[in-house]
Amino acid sequence: MLTLLDDPISGNGYKIRLLLAFLDTPYEYRTVSVLKSETRTPEFLAISRNGKIPVLILEDGTVLPESNAILHYLAAGSSWLPSDRLHHAQVLHWMFWEQYSHEPNIATLRFWNHMPELDAAQKAMIPGKHANGLAALKLMNDHLERHDWFVAGAPTIADIALFAYTHVAEEGDFKLADYPNVESWIARMQGLPGFVPMETEA
Amino acid sequence: MLTLLDDPISGNGYKIRLLLAFLDTPYEYRTVSVLKSETRTPEFLAISRNGKIPVLILEDGTVLPESNAILHYLAAGSSWLPSDRLHHAQVLHWMFWEQYSHEPNIATLRFWNHMPELDAAQKAMIPGKHANGLAALKLMNDHLERHDWFVAGAPTIADIALFAYTHVAEEGDFKLADYPNVESWIARMQGLPGFVPMETEA
Repeated sequence: MLTLLDDPISGNGYKIRLLLAFLDTPYEYRTVSVLKSETRTPEFLAISRNGKIPVLILEDGTVLPESNAILHYLAAGSSWLPSDRLHHAQVLHWMFWEQYSHEPNIATLRFWNHMPELDAAQKAMIPGKHANGLAALKLMNDHLERHDWFVAGAPTIADIALFAYTHVAEEGDFKLADYPNVESWIARMQGLPGFVPMETEA
Repeated sequence: MLTLLDDPISGNGYKIRLLLAFLDTPYEYRTVSVLKSETRTPEFLAISRNGKIPVLILEDGTVLPESNAILHYLAAGSSWLPSDRLHHAQVLHWMFWEQYSHEPNIATLRFWNHMPELDAAQKAMIPGKHANGLAALKLMNDHLERHDWFVAGAPTIADIALFAYTHVAEEGDFKLADYPNVESWIARMQGLPGFVPMETEA
Protein backbone atom coordinates (compact mmCIF):
# COMPACT_ATOMS: atom_id res chain seq x y z
CA MET A 1 0.00 0.00 0.00
CA LEU A 2 1.10 3.58 -0.63
CA THR A 3 2.17 5.61 2.40
CA LEU A 4 1.81 9.39 2.57
CA LEU A 5 3.95 11.35 5.02
CA ASP A 6 2.11 14.62 5.47
CA ASP A 7 0.82 17.32 7.79
CA PRO A 8 -2.96 17.91 7.79
CA ILE A 9 -2.32 21.68 7.71
CA SER A 10 -0.38 21.44 4.43
CA GLY A 11 -2.03 22.44 1.16
CA ASN A 12 0.77 20.68 -0.70
CA GLY A 13 -0.20 17.51 1.17
CA TYR A 14 -3.90 18.14 0.51
CA LYS A 15 -3.18 18.02 -3.23
CA ILE A 16 -2.21 14.36 -2.80
CA ARG A 17 -5.07 13.52 -0.41
CA LEU A 18 -7.52 15.06 -2.87
CA LEU A 19 -6.21 13.20 -5.93
CA LEU A 20 -6.11 9.90 -4.01
CA ALA A 21 -9.75 10.51 -3.02
CA PHE A 22 -10.75 11.24 -6.63
CA LEU A 23 -8.91 8.07 -7.74
CA ASP A 24 -10.42 6.10 -4.83
CA THR A 25 -6.95 4.78 -3.99
CA PRO A 26 -6.36 3.53 -0.42
CA TYR A 27 -3.20 4.63 1.40
CA GLU A 28 -1.62 4.74 4.81
CA TYR A 29 -1.37 8.22 6.34
CA ARG A 30 1.43 9.26 8.69
CA THR A 31 1.39 12.71 10.26
CA VAL A 32 4.67 14.68 10.37
CA SER A 33 4.18 18.09 12.01
CA VAL A 34 5.81 21.05 10.29
CA LEU A 35 5.17 23.48 13.16
CA LYS A 36 6.79 21.01 15.59
CA SER A 37 9.80 20.74 13.19
CA GLU A 38 9.29 17.00 12.77
CA THR A 39 10.37 17.42 9.13
CA ARG A 40 13.87 18.39 10.36
CA THR A 41 14.63 15.39 12.56
CA PRO A 42 17.46 13.02 11.55
CA GLU A 43 14.83 10.28 11.09
CA PHE A 44 12.81 12.32 8.61
CA LEU A 45 15.88 13.67 6.79
CA ALA A 46 17.05 10.07 6.31
CA ILE A 47 13.80 9.48 4.38
CA SER A 48 13.75 12.77 2.48
CA ARG A 49 16.83 14.93 2.52
CA ASN A 50 14.98 18.12 1.56
CA GLY A 51 13.07 18.08 4.86
CA LYS A 52 9.63 18.81 3.46
CA ILE A 53 6.28 17.09 3.36
CA PRO A 54 4.43 15.64 1.54
CA VAL A 55 6.46 12.55 0.70
CA LEU A 56 4.97 9.49 -0.98
CA ILE A 57 6.46 6.07 -0.24
CA LEU A 58 5.69 3.52 -2.92
CA GLU A 59 4.98 -0.17 -2.31
CA ASP A 60 8.64 -1.08 -2.97
CA GLY A 61 9.93 1.59 -0.55
CA THR A 62 10.86 4.16 -3.20
CA VAL A 63 10.57 7.68 -1.77
CA LEU A 64 9.04 10.40 -3.95
CA PRO A 65 9.04 14.01 -2.67
CA GLU A 66 7.59 17.24 -4.20
CA SER A 67 3.80 17.47 -4.23
CA ASN A 68 3.45 18.17 -7.94
CA ALA A 69 5.78 15.31 -8.92
CA ILE A 70 3.70 12.99 -6.69
CA LEU A 71 0.51 14.21 -8.40
CA HIS A 72 2.09 13.44 -11.78
CA TYR A 73 3.11 9.93 -10.69
CA LEU A 74 -0.32 9.09 -9.27
CA ALA A 75 -2.30 10.61 -12.17
CA ALA A 76 -0.37 8.78 -14.93
CA GLY A 77 -2.80 6.88 -17.12
CA SER A 78 -5.89 8.58 -15.69
CA SER A 79 -8.03 11.44 -17.03
CA TRP A 80 -6.31 13.72 -14.50
CA LEU A 81 -3.19 13.80 -16.72
CA PRO A 82 -3.82 14.27 -20.46
CA SER A 83 -1.48 12.20 -22.64
CA ASP A 84 -1.54 14.65 -25.56
CA ARG A 85 1.94 16.22 -25.78
CA LEU A 86 0.80 19.86 -25.72
CA HIS A 87 -1.89 19.37 -23.08
CA HIS A 88 0.61 17.51 -20.92
CA ALA A 89 3.05 20.45 -21.16
CA GLN A 90 0.23 22.92 -20.46
CA VAL A 91 -0.69 21.02 -17.28
CA LEU A 92 2.96 21.30 -16.24
CA HIS A 93 3.04 24.99 -17.19
CA TRP A 94 0.33 25.70 -14.59
CA MET A 95 1.96 23.41 -12.02
CA PHE A 96 5.37 25.09 -12.36
CA TRP A 97 3.64 28.47 -12.24
CA GLU A 98 1.88 27.35 -9.06
CA GLN A 99 5.16 26.47 -7.36
CA TYR A 100 6.98 29.61 -8.46
CA SER A 101 4.39 32.40 -8.63
CA HIS A 102 1.46 31.26 -6.46
CA GLU A 103 2.54 29.01 -3.57
CA PRO A 104 5.46 31.13 -2.26
CA ASN A 105 3.06 34.06 -1.96
CA ILE A 106 -0.44 32.78 -1.15
CA ALA A 107 0.57 29.67 0.81
CA THR A 108 3.43 31.34 2.64
CA LEU A 109 1.29 34.24 3.92
CA ARG A 110 -1.29 31.72 5.14
CA PHE A 111 1.44 29.68 6.87
CA TRP A 112 2.92 32.78 8.47
CA ASN A 113 -0.51 33.62 9.90
CA HIS A 114 -0.30 30.27 11.73
CA MET A 115 3.10 31.11 13.26
CA PRO A 116 3.40 32.74 16.68
CA GLU A 117 5.95 35.31 15.48
CA LEU A 118 7.79 36.42 12.34
CA ASP A 119 11.37 37.66 12.10
CA ALA A 120 12.34 41.00 10.53
CA ALA A 121 13.20 39.49 7.13
CA GLN A 122 9.82 37.77 6.95
CA LYS A 123 8.00 40.96 7.89
CA ALA A 124 9.87 42.83 5.14
CA MET A 125 8.68 40.25 2.62
CA ILE A 126 4.94 40.55 3.37
CA PRO A 127 4.08 43.48 1.04
CA GLY A 128 5.87 41.88 -1.92
CA LYS A 129 4.27 38.50 -1.30
CA HIS A 130 0.85 40.10 -0.96
CA ALA A 131 1.27 41.98 -4.26
CA ASN A 132 2.48 38.83 -6.02
CA GLY A 133 -0.43 36.87 -4.55
CA LEU A 134 -2.93 39.42 -5.88
CA ALA A 135 -1.30 39.19 -9.31
CA ALA A 136 -1.53 35.38 -9.21
CA LEU A 137 -5.24 35.44 -8.32
CA LYS A 138 -5.92 38.00 -11.06
CA LEU A 139 -4.09 35.87 -13.63
CA MET A 140 -6.16 32.83 -12.62
CA ASN A 141 -9.38 34.86 -12.69
CA ASP A 142 -8.57 36.15 -16.19
CA HIS A 143 -7.84 32.64 -17.46
CA LEU A 144 -11.05 31.28 -15.93
CA GLU A 145 -13.05 34.03 -17.66
CA ARG A 146 -12.79 31.92 -20.82
CA HIS A 147 -12.20 28.42 -19.40
CA ASP A 148 -14.02 26.17 -16.92
CA TRP A 149 -10.78 24.29 -16.17
CA PHE A 150 -7.13 25.21 -16.59
CA VAL A 151 -6.26 22.85 -19.44
CA ALA A 152 -8.13 21.05 -22.20
CA GLY A 153 -11.67 21.67 -20.93
CA ALA A 154 -11.59 19.08 -18.15
CA PRO A 155 -10.24 18.82 -14.60
CA THR A 156 -6.57 17.81 -14.40
CA ILE A 157 -3.85 17.79 -11.77
CA ALA A 158 -3.21 21.43 -12.72
CA ASP A 159 -6.61 22.25 -11.16
CA ILE A 160 -5.80 20.17 -8.08
CA ALA A 161 -2.38 21.84 -7.67
CA LEU A 162 -3.95 25.30 -7.93
CA PHE A 163 -7.04 24.51 -5.86
CA ALA A 164 -5.15 23.45 -2.74
CA TYR A 165 -3.95 26.89 -1.62
CA THR A 166 -6.35 29.05 -3.64
CA HIS A 167 -9.46 27.92 -1.81
CA VAL A 168 -7.91 28.83 1.57
CA ALA A 169 -6.32 32.07 0.33
CA GLU A 170 -8.45 34.08 2.76
CA GLU A 171 -6.38 32.57 5.60
CA GLY A 172 -3.50 34.55 4.03
CA ASP A 173 -5.62 37.75 3.92
CA PHE A 174 -6.69 37.58 0.26
CA LYS A 175 -10.34 38.27 -0.64
CA LEU A 176 -11.70 35.64 -2.99
CA ALA A 177 -14.88 37.67 -3.60
CA ASP A 178 -12.73 39.94 -5.77
CA TYR A 179 -12.18 37.00 -8.15
CA PRO A 180 -15.62 35.70 -9.15
CA ASN A 181 -14.34 33.31 -11.83
CA VAL A 182 -12.03 31.76 -9.25
CA GLU A 183 -14.95 31.36 -6.87
CA SER A 184 -17.04 29.60 -9.56
CA TRP A 185 -14.13 27.28 -10.36
CA ILE A 186 -13.71 26.48 -6.64
CA ALA A 187 -17.40 25.51 -6.55
CA ARG A 188 -16.93 23.31 -9.64
CA MET A 189 -14.00 21.55 -7.96
CA GLN A 190 -16.01 21.01 -4.78
CA GLY A 191 -18.83 19.49 -6.84
CA LEU A 192 -16.69 16.79 -8.48
CA PRO A 193 -17.50 13.18 -7.49
CA GLY A 194 -15.12 11.98 -4.78
CA PHE A 195 -14.17 15.49 -3.58
CA VAL A 196 -12.92 15.67 0.01
CA PRO A 197 -12.42 18.90 1.97
CA MET A 198 -9.12 20.02 3.45
CA GLU A 199 -8.83 19.97 7.22
CA THR A 200 -7.76 23.56 7.52
CA GLU A 201 -7.14 23.72 11.24
CA ALA A 202 -4.76 21.16 12.71
CA MET B 1 9.68 26.98 -37.12
CA LEU B 2 9.73 27.32 -33.32
CA THR B 3 10.26 30.83 -31.92
CA LEU B 4 11.93 31.45 -28.56
CA LEU B 5 11.32 34.76 -26.77
CA ASP B 6 14.19 35.08 -24.34
CA ASP B 7 16.89 37.21 -22.77
CA PRO B 8 20.50 36.02 -23.25
CA ILE B 9 21.16 36.75 -19.55
CA SER B 10 18.44 34.31 -18.43
CA GLY B 11 19.39 30.88 -17.11
CA ASN B 12 15.77 29.82 -17.52
CA GLY B 13 16.08 30.74 -21.20
CA TYR B 14 19.45 28.98 -21.44
CA LYS B 15 17.75 25.72 -20.41
CA ILE B 16 15.76 25.89 -23.66
CA ARG B 17 18.70 27.00 -25.82
CA LEU B 18 20.77 24.14 -24.42
CA LEU B 19 18.13 21.46 -25.03
CA LEU B 20 17.44 22.75 -28.55
CA ALA B 21 21.19 22.55 -29.21
CA PHE B 22 21.38 18.96 -27.89
CA LEU B 23 18.35 18.06 -30.05
CA ASP B 24 19.83 19.94 -33.03
CA THR B 25 16.48 21.68 -33.54
CA PRO B 26 16.49 25.00 -35.44
CA TYR B 27 14.51 27.94 -34.03
CA GLU B 28 14.04 31.65 -34.37
CA TYR B 29 15.41 33.70 -31.47
CA ARG B 30 13.87 36.99 -30.33
CA THR B 31 15.48 38.97 -27.52
CA VAL B 32 13.23 40.49 -24.84
CA SER B 33 15.27 42.38 -22.22
CA VAL B 34 14.33 41.80 -18.60
CA LEU B 35 16.50 44.62 -17.25
CA LYS B 36 14.86 47.05 -19.73
CA SER B 37 11.40 45.77 -18.54
CA GLU B 38 10.50 44.63 -22.05
CA THR B 39 8.67 41.68 -20.44
CA ARG B 40 6.18 44.14 -18.89
CA THR B 41 5.09 45.98 -22.06
CA PRO B 42 1.45 45.63 -23.23
CA GLU B 43 2.78 43.88 -26.36
CA PHE B 44 4.62 41.23 -24.38
CA LEU B 45 1.82 40.77 -21.84
CA ALA B 46 -0.59 40.17 -24.74
CA ILE B 47 1.63 37.20 -25.68
CA SER B 48 2.27 35.90 -22.15
CA ARG B 49 0.23 37.32 -19.31
CA ASN B 50 2.70 36.31 -16.63
CA GLY B 51 5.31 38.74 -18.00
CA LYS B 52 8.27 36.37 -17.90
CA ILE B 53 10.69 34.90 -20.39
CA PRO B 54 11.38 32.34 -21.78
CA VAL B 55 8.28 31.78 -23.89
CA LEU B 56 8.15 29.24 -26.70
CA ILE B 57 5.85 29.90 -29.66
CA LEU B 58 4.95 26.74 -31.57
CA GLU B 59 4.52 26.50 -35.34
CA ASP B 60 0.73 26.98 -35.01
CA GLY B 61 1.11 30.07 -32.80
CA THR B 62 0.43 28.32 -29.48
CA VAL B 63 2.27 30.11 -26.68
CA LEU B 64 3.98 27.99 -24.00
CA PRO B 65 5.54 29.73 -20.97
CA GLU B 66 7.50 28.32 -17.98
CA SER B 67 11.00 27.06 -18.78
CA ASN B 68 10.55 23.61 -17.28
CA ALA B 69 7.22 23.04 -19.07
CA ILE B 70 8.92 24.05 -22.33
CA LEU B 71 11.75 21.57 -21.64
CA HIS B 72 9.14 18.86 -21.08
CA TYR B 73 7.34 19.67 -24.33
CA LEU B 74 10.54 19.69 -26.39
CA ALA B 75 12.04 16.58 -24.79
CA ALA B 76 8.96 14.38 -25.26
CA GLY B 77 9.90 11.21 -27.12
CA SER B 78 13.66 11.79 -26.75
CA SER B 79 16.18 10.27 -24.34
CA TRP B 80 16.07 13.54 -22.39
CA LEU B 81 12.69 12.54 -20.91
CA PRO B 82 12.39 8.93 -19.68
CA SER B 83 9.00 7.37 -20.43
CA ASP B 84 9.09 5.02 -17.43
CA ARG B 85 6.43 6.23 -14.98
CA LEU B 86 8.68 6.47 -11.92
CA HIS B 87 11.67 7.94 -13.77
CA HIS B 88 9.38 10.50 -15.37
CA ALA B 89 8.10 11.55 -11.93
CA GLN B 90 11.66 11.65 -10.58
CA VAL B 91 12.71 13.98 -13.39
CA LEU B 92 9.80 16.23 -12.41
CA HIS B 93 10.72 15.95 -8.72
CA TRP B 94 14.08 17.54 -9.45
CA MET B 95 12.54 20.14 -11.79
CA PHE B 96 9.95 21.24 -9.22
CA TRP B 97 12.67 21.28 -6.58
CA GLU B 98 14.75 23.47 -8.91
CA GLN B 99 11.96 26.01 -9.28
CA TYR B 100 11.08 26.10 -5.56
CA SER B 101 14.31 25.51 -3.63
CA HIS B 102 17.14 26.36 -6.05
CA GLU B 103 16.20 29.06 -8.59
CA PRO B 104 14.63 31.58 -6.15
CA ASN B 105 17.87 31.52 -4.16
CA ILE B 106 20.79 30.88 -6.50
CA ALA B 107 19.39 32.56 -9.61
CA THR B 108 17.86 35.48 -7.76
CA LEU B 109 21.10 36.40 -5.97
CA ARG B 110 22.92 36.27 -9.32
CA PHE B 111 20.25 38.48 -10.89
CA TRP B 112 20.39 40.96 -8.03
CA ASN B 113 24.15 41.24 -8.54
CA HIS B 114 23.33 42.50 -12.05
CA MET B 115 20.97 45.19 -10.75
CA PRO B 116 22.18 48.72 -10.02
CA GLU B 117 20.42 48.88 -6.63
CA LEU B 118 18.27 46.76 -4.31
CA ASP B 119 15.40 47.94 -2.14
CA ALA B 120 15.21 47.34 1.64
CA ALA B 121 13.01 44.24 1.34
CA GLN B 122 15.42 42.65 -1.14
CA LYS B 123 18.41 43.41 1.10
CA ALA B 124 16.60 41.78 4.03
CA MET B 125 16.12 38.63 1.95
CA ILE B 126 19.80 38.11 1.02
CA PRO B 127 20.93 36.11 4.11
CA GLY B 128 17.98 33.72 3.86
CA LYS B 129 18.44 33.23 0.13
CA HIS B 130 22.17 32.64 0.61
CA ALA B 131 21.54 30.02 3.31
CA ASN B 132 18.90 28.29 1.15
CA GLY B 133 21.25 28.37 -1.84
CA LEU B 134 24.02 26.70 0.19
CA ALA B 135 21.54 24.02 1.29
CA ALA B 136 20.49 23.44 -2.32
CA LEU B 137 24.10 23.03 -3.50
CA LYS B 138 24.82 20.65 -0.63
CA LEU B 139 21.76 18.55 -1.44
CA MET B 140 22.88 18.31 -5.09
CA ASN B 141 26.45 17.49 -4.05
CA ASP B 142 25.22 14.71 -1.74
CA HIS B 143 23.03 13.22 -4.49
CA LEU B 144 25.89 13.35 -7.00
CA GLU B 145 28.14 11.50 -4.57
CA ARG B 146 26.34 8.33 -5.64
CA HIS B 147 25.01 9.29 -9.10
CA ASP B 148 26.55 10.63 -12.30
CA TRP B 149 23.21 12.14 -13.37
CA PHE B 150 20.12 13.12 -11.40
CA VAL B 151 17.76 10.40 -12.65
CA ALA B 152 18.10 6.91 -14.13
CA GLY B 153 21.83 7.00 -14.83
CA ALA B 154 21.64 9.19 -17.92
CA PRO B 155 21.31 12.91 -18.70
CA THR B 156 17.72 14.18 -18.68
CA ILE B 157 15.97 17.54 -18.64
CA ALA B 158 16.36 17.44 -14.84
CA ASP B 159 20.11 17.86 -15.40
CA ILE B 160 19.52 20.68 -17.89
CA ALA B 161 17.12 22.47 -15.52
CA LEU B 162 19.64 22.24 -12.67
CA PHE B 163 22.71 23.00 -14.76
CA ALA B 164 21.49 26.38 -16.02
CA TYR B 165 21.86 28.35 -12.79
CA THR B 166 24.21 26.00 -10.93
CA HIS B 167 27.14 26.46 -13.29
CA VAL B 168 26.96 30.26 -12.89
CA ALA B 169 26.28 30.16 -9.13
CA GLU B 170 29.54 32.01 -8.47
CA GLU B 171 27.92 35.10 -10.01
CA GLY B 172 25.58 34.93 -6.98
CA ASP B 173 28.54 34.62 -4.58
CA PHE B 174 28.46 30.84 -4.10
CA LYS B 175 31.75 28.87 -4.21
CA LEU B 176 31.43 25.82 -6.43
CA ALA B 177 34.83 24.50 -5.26
CA ASP B 178 33.06 23.57 -2.00
CA TYR B 179 30.92 21.09 -3.99
CA PRO B 180 33.32 18.80 -5.87
CA ASN B 181 30.63 16.37 -7.06
CA VAL B 182 28.72 19.30 -8.52
CA GLU B 183 31.88 20.46 -10.30
CA SER B 184 32.42 16.99 -11.81
CA TRP B 185 28.80 16.85 -12.97
CA ILE B 186 29.17 20.32 -14.55
CA ALA B 187 32.19 19.02 -16.46
CA ARG B 188 30.19 15.96 -17.61
CA MET B 189 27.40 18.24 -18.86
CA GLN B 190 29.91 20.42 -20.72
CA GLY B 191 31.38 17.33 -22.36
CA LEU B 192 28.10 16.11 -23.88
CA PRO B 193 27.87 16.20 -27.71
CA GLY B 194 26.07 19.35 -28.86
CA PHE B 195 26.72 21.30 -25.66
CA VAL B 196 26.63 25.09 -26.07
CA PRO B 197 27.79 27.57 -23.42
CA MET B 198 25.59 30.24 -21.86
CA GLU B 199 26.35 33.82 -22.80
CA THR B 200 26.66 35.04 -19.25
CA GLU B 201 27.17 38.73 -19.97
CA ALA B 202 24.57 40.41 -22.15
